[in-house]
Amino acid sequence: MRIVGVRRPRAHSGVEVATLGDQGGEVTVISSLEDFWADPAVHLSRPPAGATYPVASVELVPPVLPDARVICIGLNYLEHAAEGSFRDQELPPYPSLFARWTQSLTVDGAEVPVPSNEEGLDWEGEVVAWVGAPLIDASPDEALASVIGYSTFNDLTARRAQKLTSQWILGKNGDRSGPIGPMVPAAEVGDLKQGLRLRTRVNGETVQDGCTDQMIYTVGETLSLVSHTLSLRPGDLLATGTPAGVGYGRKPPRLLQPGDTVEVEVERLGTLRNAVVGNERRSEAAFRGHR
Amino acid sequence: MRIVGVRRPRAHSGVEVATLGDQGGEVTVISSLEDFWADPAVHLSRPPAGATYPVASVELVPPVLPDARVICIGLNYLEHAAEGSFRDQELPPYPSLFARWTQSLTVDGAEVPVPSNEEGLDWEGEVVAWVGAPLIDASPDEALASVIGYSTFNDLTARRAQKLTSQWILGKNGDRSGPIGPMVPAAEVGDLKQGLRLRTRVNGETVQDGCTDQMIYTVGETLSLVSHTLSLRPGDLLATGTPAGVGYGRKPPRLLQPGDTVEVEVERLGTLRNAVVGNERRSEAAFRGHR
Repeated sequence: MRIVGVRRPRAHSGVEVATLGDQGGEVTVISSLEDFWADPAVHLSRPPAGATYPVASVELVPPVLPDARVICIGLNYLEHAAEGSFRDQELPPYPSLFARWTQSLTVDGAEVPVPSNEEGLDWEGEVVAWVGAPLIDASPDEALASVIGYSTFNDLTARRAQKLTSQWILGKNGDRSGPIGPMVPAAEVGDLKQGLRLRTRVNGETVQDGCTDQMIYTVGETLSLVSHTLSLRPGDLLATGTPAGVGYGRKPPRLLQPGDTVEVEVERLGTLRNAVVGNERRSEAAFRGHR
Repeated sequence: MRIVGVRRPRAHSGVEVATLGDQGGEVTVISSLEDFWADPAVHLSRPPAGATYPVASVELVPPVLPDARVICIGLNYLEHAAEGSFRDQELPPYPSLFARWTQSLTVDGAEVPVPSNEEGLDWEGEVVAWVGAPLIDASPDEALASVIGYSTFNDLTARRAQKLTSQWILGKNGDRSGPIGPMVPAAEVGDLKQGLRLRTRVNGETVQDGCTDQMIYTVGETLSLVSHTLSLRPGDLLATGTPAGVGYGRKPPRLLQPGDTVEVEVERLGTLRNAVVGNERRSEAAFRGHR
């Protein structure tokens, strides 16, 4: 099952959550976005009760609450930590967490602009975990059990902005820089520790080929850590970090240019494909978010 | 004029934006939250057209869009940079920006819990600037001109979580850790460079006494920088950093404990007063956000 967000033209219902049919040609509405995240497990346990529409008649958007927290792990695969600026440092004892705002998220097929003053965009293929229950001071097992689904994710990064200072968030929140795929229920995915293969391709060439069993910090451990500082809610997201093979660690470095196409494929979760465009396209993209 | 968010019990209108009367006893509705931020300058240019209610009959919430970006400057006053971990380092050439999610915001009078595993909460009295117009690749002058208002802010910080790794955001997003005061229109405030006195008090004792003319990076410069990576929208916020006098830089360090009251007072913007409570109160506070 693939869960998507839809916005219907001329409907005043706001964003709704729907299932995407097996052939990808139609969506069947489950509920409003707010109702879905009020009890996602119940909604996933029964067939969707709403109407069915052709995909071509709706706008697909991330099924993300506007105020969801998008928590991202910076370094979660040993070989990726080694290829970047951490190569001469000891690995930190805790996951390095940074923040995305939901305004940076977009969907499969969206065009992603290279921001001003950047030499390109870097790719970071990832898996996102969706929190499905409230978590306060949760144990790692409780936190993992709360995960309701997973998605393919591309944490597209403006490296210059990321590295202007010690804090990364500016370079991690460019317009439409976070394409996220449909949510696949956790029951169909299993534990990431069992290993899902993750590949990133640029214009068809494989640039990342990792496996989620190589993660340093598990989803349960990381959500448990976070829940001891802030109370997680259904709909919050955890981006679990990228394996080795990003562009800026290459010799010479390689970044995505306007005209390039980047794909992230994760076993059982599906493929995201996004075209990179120039900064002049920012103005078009900027104000078509999921609001 | 003081602009607040209100939620009326049993009304299905969601959050509305309102003016708070001079005596603080009543609110007069301007519009829905979404309509206000679609064109805030127009809404502020005319008297509010909605109904008036006693403050006691409504819930006051931040007048913040759920998907607003809360961009925070980490080190923006020389003496504060010197009292913390940057004391032996050169000041970065750009403002260090970190992220809050809107779920961490709350209002004057809210009780703020100390998260698990923290020895207390640190205070950081600040001024927040509210973006009032779309900003893409804006100049500093354009960016400053877009600011529609300012608020008093307390960037309450879980220092242990903040310093677990190089990235600060975990310790900056505790439940209800960001009390924000009513928005005062920029036309009534003037330029922060002219200097607004900012004082923080703990149980009545003054612990910070700064002035906004001491800022290193101006609001215009910082919003301009950000707008070259991501497109700012009306309703996005910039927290401009705290002056010297925070708790962890003291000898010995001092942190807020359950039972303490912390106040931030900014000239022309007003006073925020919040009580600190124990971690056991997190569960009550967590799910009463502005959603």
